Amino acid sequence: MSVEPRPARQDSLRARNLALVLRRISGAPEPVSRAEVAAATGLTRATVSALVDTLVASRLVAELPPRLTRATGRPATGLVVDGAHTAGLGIEINVDYLAVCVVDLAGGIRHRSVLPGDQRGRAPERTCAAAAELAGQAVEAATADGLTVAGVGVAVPGLVDLPAGLLRFAPNLGWRDTDVEALLRRAGRLDGLDITVDNEANYAALGELHSDPAALDDFLHVSGEIGVGAGIILGRELFHGTRGWSGEIGHLTVDLDGPPCRCGARGCLEQFAGQEAILRAAGLPVNAATSLGGQATVGRIIDAAEGGSAQTDAALRRAGRALGVAVAGAVNLLDIPGVVLGGIYAPLAKWIAPEVQREVDQRILSAAWSQVIVRVSAAGSDAAVLGAAGSVTRKILRDPVDWLRHDQTFLAR
Amino acid sequence: MSVEPRPARQDSLRARNLALVLRRISGAPEPVSRAEVAAATGLTRATVSALVDTLVASRLVAELPPRLTRATGRPATGLVVDGAHTAGLGIEINVDYLAVCVVDLAGGIRHRSVLPGDQRGRAPERTCAAAAELAGQAVEAATADGLTVAGVGVAVPGLVDLPAGLLRFAPNLGWRDTDVEALLRRAGRLDGLDITVDNEANYAALGELHSDPAALDDFLHVSGEIGVGAGIILGRELFHGTRGWSGEIGHLTVDLDGPPCRCGARGCLEQFAGQEAILRAAGLPVNAATSLGGQATVGRIIDAAEGGSAQTDAALRRAGRALGVAVAGAVNLLDIPGVVLGGIYAPLAKWIAPEVQREVDQRILSAAWSQVIVRVSAAGSDAAVLGAAGSVTRKILRDPVDWLRHDQTFLAR
Repeated sequence: MSVEPRPARQDSLRARNLALVLRRISGAPEPVSRAEVAAATGLTRATVSALVDTLVASRLVAELPPRLTRATGRPATGLVVDGAHTAGLGIEINVDYLAVCVVDLAGGIRHRSVLPGDQRGRAPERTCAAAAELAGQAVEAATADGLTVAGVGVAVPGLVDLPAGLLRFAPNLGWRDTDVEALLRRAGRLDGLDITVDNEANYAALGELHSDPAALDDFLHVSGEIGVGAGIILGRELFHGTRGWSGEIGHLTVDLDGPPCRCGARGCLEQFAGQEAILRAAGLPVNAATSLGGQATVGRIIDAAEGGSAQTDAALRRAGRALGVAVAGAVNLLDIPGVVLGGIYAPLAKWIAPEVQREVDQRILSAAWSQVIVRVSAAGSDAAVLGAAGSVTRKILRDPVDWLRHDQTFLAR
Repeated sequence: MSVEPRPARQDSLRARNLALVLRRISGAPEPVSRAEVAAATGLTRATVSALVDTLVASRLVAELPPRLTRATGRPATGLVVDGAHTAGLGIEINVDYLAVCVVDLAGGIRHRSVLPGDQRGRAPERTCAAAAELAGQAVEAATADGLTVAGVGVAVPGLVDLPAGLLRFAPNLGWRDTDVEALLRRAGRLDGLDITVDNEANYAALGELHSDPAALDDFLHVSGEIGVGAGIILGRELFHGTRGWSGEIGHLTVDLDGPPCRCGARGCLEQFAGQEAILRAAGLPVNAATSLGGQATVGRIIDAAEGGSAQTDAALRRAGRALGVAVAGAVNLLDIPGVVLGGIYAPLAKWIAPEVQREVDQRILSAAWSQVIVRVSAAGSDAAVLGAAGSVTRKILRDPVDWLRHDQTFLAR
């Protein structure tokens, strides 16, 4: 970019105010007027108008015709986030399926597809090529809808080094030190797009924030899949930990001398409450079931439990109890007021949730003064791919200048 | 205060710059000059000089004679934090002792006293009266040294509601819903002083930050006492959780069906690694030992282990293993690169630390890429009272204006 930068102070003030105005518009439950934005932000109406003009010209904000705004006082132009032009792409690489999703800036889900299939026997190159192909189709569909894809979030089931995005270890895929971004780029379907790789459980927590208008500001989102992970939301932001490896609740010890885990330790939560552990304890076929993909597998568990299988019922309650013990530990440590049961725990909540609530009530030291709220995920198994797509739009809404710098004319405006 | 406040913007800018200058001076390993402060902060030399004059007049910063500064370039006046005038008072109310401590603004420990004695049979009123008496003596000693005590931090072994400071529950004292501040004030020895009550494990983590110049920016400090607690330091700040109840590692489940805990649950870490659990497993007398106070009790455990008691050795290793399991869980969740063993674990580290390191290496998913550093506390059993005192001086160094507002003339200066 050859545009001469302005002095740092003025530039950063403008960036801050632009973000302030956009946040006010995106955070409002209904269209707001320029005057309302000025009143809420403390900026002058002239400043707000100039900033709104920039946001409208950049197609991040749309103006509704006056008649659609609230009838409190004289008619004014209603401002809303522009959902027609900018979008984020989410990719999820999971143990038994691949998924993609396009979310527009206003939060609308514009495209979604899932490709079931066990990835454990495949080379990372092949899995990533298949994911890139699926993503390429999503970009085409988005473009046909008039959307510009602003970036890509990739959810993977393992430890990701931030900010570099290297997948260090995905125990259930058997991948180690995998450069997922490079493998996805090879297919040539994502040229020119920023790609961010993060842990699926982190993205799933963001997906929950995206899907549930009543989400708490601080909560722990637990994702049950083949593996079990958690995302920690503090002040409506993801808590990543020092290196990006937070939330590995699946490897909390539930039983000191319990069954061995793929991670190398013993008695991890995953060995009680992971999808395969539940199938095994229920006496249901493990390999046949997982090749069906997550939802079909969960359907089999539900069928068995509702069909009166005492063994399945016991397996689910054992999973719920172990999950409750681990969740109680997390709440004792973090002091977090809410827990969201996501992934396979959402459809299995009828069996899992009461056990979790019981352990939580018994084991959390502070439970007597403030009951921890256990909820079922609003996003369910879509949470990770939705959160991955939403992380792109979320970033634009929070820091619009960073995205607008892509537009060569912006800084000169 | 009757001083007319200046417009918000100018006032907050001045406050921010004053804090910036003071942070630069207090963060430097050796005396710095005005010119160095100006270069490091980006403020003009005139602005820095005016702010330094305010800090010197307020006795938060002292000027050293030029000859004592570094000989890099022409001689300049060296600026250091003024340790001669302002101090914080720490009070620790624990199960088997009371302690007080005075720390000056430069970090020097100026007064310290401990009163051993089991507090479990006593009414909170009597314990707090005894603590207030001890604190009053410390204020007298500080005053005699020319120090102004700027505030009080009180460390208590239980759940504290923030910001109100109500002690909700101290399982090992048997206290519930106790207004410790009000009980301390009754004695009339702490009139006019701000009092902040917080959990002992939180203050102990701050104490570690205070005592160890090589402390990591992010770490978990585990305090072994009768109870077991943890303080979480992220970015050199205490992480309190939503309501102030974070760090309750003592109530993480180590064994699903383990022994009952005073908190009402079963198999909590405290039942394996708390002081009394170790004594019991070692076959040492529990009641007689605890009435001696923590350090004498630990001395008995060490004597038994070094005297060849296999039972004591096994009890310590069992405690270390349980602690390692809980710590590994915390690191899996939080992704925190360091663990500090404090309280009784410091003198017992020879037996405890290797077990903790082994469990941590085995159970932390990310351990293969980044070994978690297990260290022994630099502050030991003094950490909580030191951190409580240091929290007062820390607050002044971070936000000097808030403290200087006590001085009626400051705003007019």
